[in-house]
Amino acid sequence: MTRASVVGAGMTTFGVHDSTLAELFAAAALDAYDDAGVSPDEVDAFYFGNAMGGLTENDTHLAPKLASEVGIAGVPAQRFEDACATSSNAFKNAVQAVEAGIHDTVLVGGVERCTPETGLGTGEMTRIFASASHRQYEQPTGLTFPGVFALLTKRHMHEYGTTEEQLAHVAVKNHANGTRNPRAHFGKEITVEDVLESPLVADPFRLMDCCPFSDGASAVIVTGDDRADSYDAPVDVAGVGHATDVVPLSAKPVPHATRAARDAAAQAYEQAEASADGMAFAEVHDCFTGAEVMASEAIGFFEDGEGGPAAEEGRTALDGDRPINPSGGLKAKGHPIGATGTGQIVELTEQLRGDAGKRQIDGAERAVAHNLGGDAGTTVVTVMEVRR
Amino acid sequence: MTRASVVGAGMTTFGVHDSTLAELFAAAALDAYDDAGVSPDEVDAFYFGNAMGGLTENDTHLAPKLASEVGIAGVPAQRFEDACATSSNAFKNAVQAVEAGIHDTVLVGGVERCTPETGLGTGEMTRIFASASHRQYEQPTGLTFPGVFALLTKRHMHEYGTTEEQLAHVAVKNHANGTRNPRAHFGKEITVEDVLESPLVADPFRLMDCCPFSDGASAVIVTGDDRADSYDAPVDVAGVGHATDVVPLSAKPVPHATRAARDAAAQAYEQAEASADGMAFAEVHDCFTGAEVMASEAIGFFEDGEGGPAAEEGRTALDGDRPINPSGGLKAKGHPIGATGTGQIVELTEQLRGDAGKRQIDGAERAVAHNLGGDAGTTVVTVMEVRR
Repeated sequence: MTRASVVGAGMTTFGVHDSTLAELFAAAALDAYDDAGVSPDEVDAFYFGNAMGGLTENDTHLAPKLASEVGIAGVPAQRFEDACATSSNAFKNAVQAVEAGIHDTVLVGGVERCTPETGLGTGEMTRIFASASHRQYEQPTGLTFPGVFALLTKRHMHEYGTTEEQLAHVAVKNHANGTRNPRAHFGKEITVEDVLESPLVADPFRLMDCCPFSDGASAVIVTGDDRADSYDAPVDVAGVGHATDVVPLSAKPVPHATRAARDAAAQAYEQAEASADGMAFAEVHDCFTGAEVMASEAIGFFEDGEGGPAAEEGRTALDGDRPINPSGGLKAKGHPIGATGTGQIVELTEQLRGDAGKRQIDGAERAVAHNLGGDAGTTVVTVMEVRR
Repeated sequence: MTRASVVGAGMTTFGVHDSTLAELFAAAALDAYDDAGVSPDEVDAFYFGNAMGGLTENDTHLAPKLASEVGIAGVPAQRFEDACATSSNAFKNAVQAVEAGIHDTVLVGGVERCTPETGLGTGEMTRIFASASHRQYEQPTGLTFPGVFALLTKRHMHEYGTTEEQLAHVAVKNHANGTRNPRAHFGKEITVEDVLESPLVADPFRLMDCCPFSDGASAVIVTGDDRADSYDAPVDVAGVGHATDVVPLSAKPVPHATRAARDAAAQAYEQAEASADGMAFAEVHDCFTGAEVMASEAIGFFEDGEGGPAAEEGRTALDGDRPINPSGGLKAKGHPIGATGTGQIVELTEQLRGDAGKRQIDGAERAVAHNLGGDAGTTVVTVMEVRR
C-alpha cells in the first residue's frame, strides 16, 4: 500500500496578527508550496481545519474560500471541526485519502484568529471556546476549559500525588523551548516561582499554567511515498490514530486517563510498528500544564503517575531522555485552535529533517504528535519518521 | 474494489422541533440503525455534518457528543462543515473510507436547528446563514443568500429568457410533491398565482420562491457492497463527485453555470459509468426556485436554457419525463442545513427500494442527488442504483 509523506511544511508565527483568516492561511500555504516545490496546479484536494471562524467573525464555508485564495479553486475542499483537534483530523483524513489512492497531492492545514484582533475580549472568547464542552450538561454550570482540565488534573493529583510544582515545571520547560523557536508566541523564560505566584485561574491552574489565545496558520503538503522521492526532504507518515471518548466529563469512568489518547496512540503505534520507546520526542497538547502530564502518560512516555515527577526531574526537557514539546508546545508556541494540529506536523517535519535550529533534537528519526479536542473527547495521534 | 452501499436510512420530519440537536440527531440515527438492523457495536466510524450549531447555540465539537448519544463513543468521529453541502460531503468521505477498506460500517448523518425554536429570529438566522458568503467581499455589502441566488438567477434570465412564471412552476411542483411526503415541512398545495402574488424578497424571488428555515436530522448506514447482501435492502452508491468553484461570486466567469455542479456531476457519472439520461429522477438543491432550474441544467437533465421551460411544461413533475425533487425538495420538504445532504440520500434510498409511497417514481433504478453549498462554491453529486 502507498504510504503518505509530508513533502512541504509552512506556518506563520503564532501570536497576535492583524490579518484576515485568508491572509493568515495563505501565508502558511504558500510557505508549504515553496517548501515542497509544488505549484498549486499539482494539488488535487484540500483538507482544511478551522474551529471557530463562524463564532468569532461569522465566517463559514471556508474551505472553498481559502482554496480560491491559494490557487486551488475547483478541487474537492472540506472543512473539519473537531475542536482543538481540528486540523490533525483534517491531516488524518488526508493521509487516508492519499494512502487509498483517492488523491495524489493534497494541501492540509488550519487557521484561527483568537486574539483581541478579532474584536472580541477574553470573556467572549472563553464563551466561544466553551462551545466545545457539553451544551446541556457542562456549559450551563459555567464550566469553561480551564475548569475542564482543572477537574481532570485534580483527579490526577489525587490518584498519584502530582504537585503544583511539577505542573509549574512543564510551563517553565515549554517557555525555555519557546525561546528557541522563532515562530513561538512567547519568547521569554519563566521560573517555577513565576508560575506559582501567578494569579489563580481554576485550581490548580494559575495563569502561567494556561496556554494563550493565539492567531496563526499552518499547512503541509501530503503525497504518496511513491512520489515523495522526487521532493527534496520528504518525511513519512508511519501511523495516524484517531479516537473519541464518551462525553460529558461526568460519563468518563476514569477521567484523568484520557482514554481517547490511549486508543489513538495504540492505533498509531500499531500502524507504525513502533512503541513509545522508539520515539525521539513528542509534541503533545499542553493546553494546560496538567494536560501535558496526562498526555505524556497516555502516549506511553511514562508510567501512569510518573508524568509529574518526570517533568520536575527535567526528563522532558530538550536535553532530557524523553523530550516533550521542543517547539514550546501550546503553552509557549501558542494555540491558534484550528492551526495547532498541523502546526505539530510542521514541527515533526522540521525536526525529522534536522532543520529545527536551536531546538533540534539530535538524531531524531521518529516522533509522535498528540492533539486533543474538547473535554478529551477527541484525540488524534500521529507517528512520523525519517525516510528509510 | 469494494463499492459502498447504503443499508439503512432514517430521518426526522423536517419542520419545527422543540428538541435539542442531540435529541433530533438521535431520532434519525436510531431510525437508521433499526432500518439496517445494525447495532451500534457494529459501527466503526462516524461522519457527521452540522453547519451552524456553533453560531446558533454555541455548540461545537458535536461529533463525539452525538457519538456518545447514539452508542458509538470511542469510534473515530468527525464533523464536516461545507455550508449547505455539509452532510453530502460527510457522505462522500464516508463512501471513500468504506471503498478504501478503512472502515467497515459507518454512520453518516447531519442535523440542524434553524427555526425560532433556537430562540433566534429570521434576521439573526439570515445573518448566520450569510456566514457562508464571502466575509470581505459579500457580507459587507449586505448580500444574504436570497440575494446571492437572485443574482445568479437574474443572469440566467438574461441569458436564456427564463421567466418568473417558470420559476413559480418549480415551487408549485415541489409543494405538490411535498403533500405526498409525510416528513415534509410543508404539506399544502400552492398555485402559480400564490407564488407571483407573494411578497418580493430579492428580485426575482418572492417569498414562495424561497425554501424555509427548518429543524431536522437525517442519517444513513454505509457499508461495503461485499457485506451489503446480508442486509434487507441495500442500495449501491455508484458514484460521488465533489467540486468547488472560485469565490466570491464576482470572480466566477459564468456565474449561472454553477461550475462546481457540472464538475461534480461529471465525476459522479463517470464513476457510475452513466449519464443523466440513465437517471430516473433527481433530488436537487432548490434553496430557491432559480437554483433548481440551474441545477437541472448543470446535472445534464436539460440543455442550458431549457430548465425553465421544462419546469413550466411539467416535465419535472412526478409524472413528467424528468422528475425532479419527488421528496418536495428543500422548498417543501424543508432545509435543515446540515441534514439536507444526507436527507437527499435517504430519499434516493427509499425511492430505489420502491418504498417512497405516494411519491414513488415507478421502476426507478438509478437516481442522482445534487447538494450545493454557499454561493455555489461547493457541490456534491451522488449517483445511487438498485443492487444488480
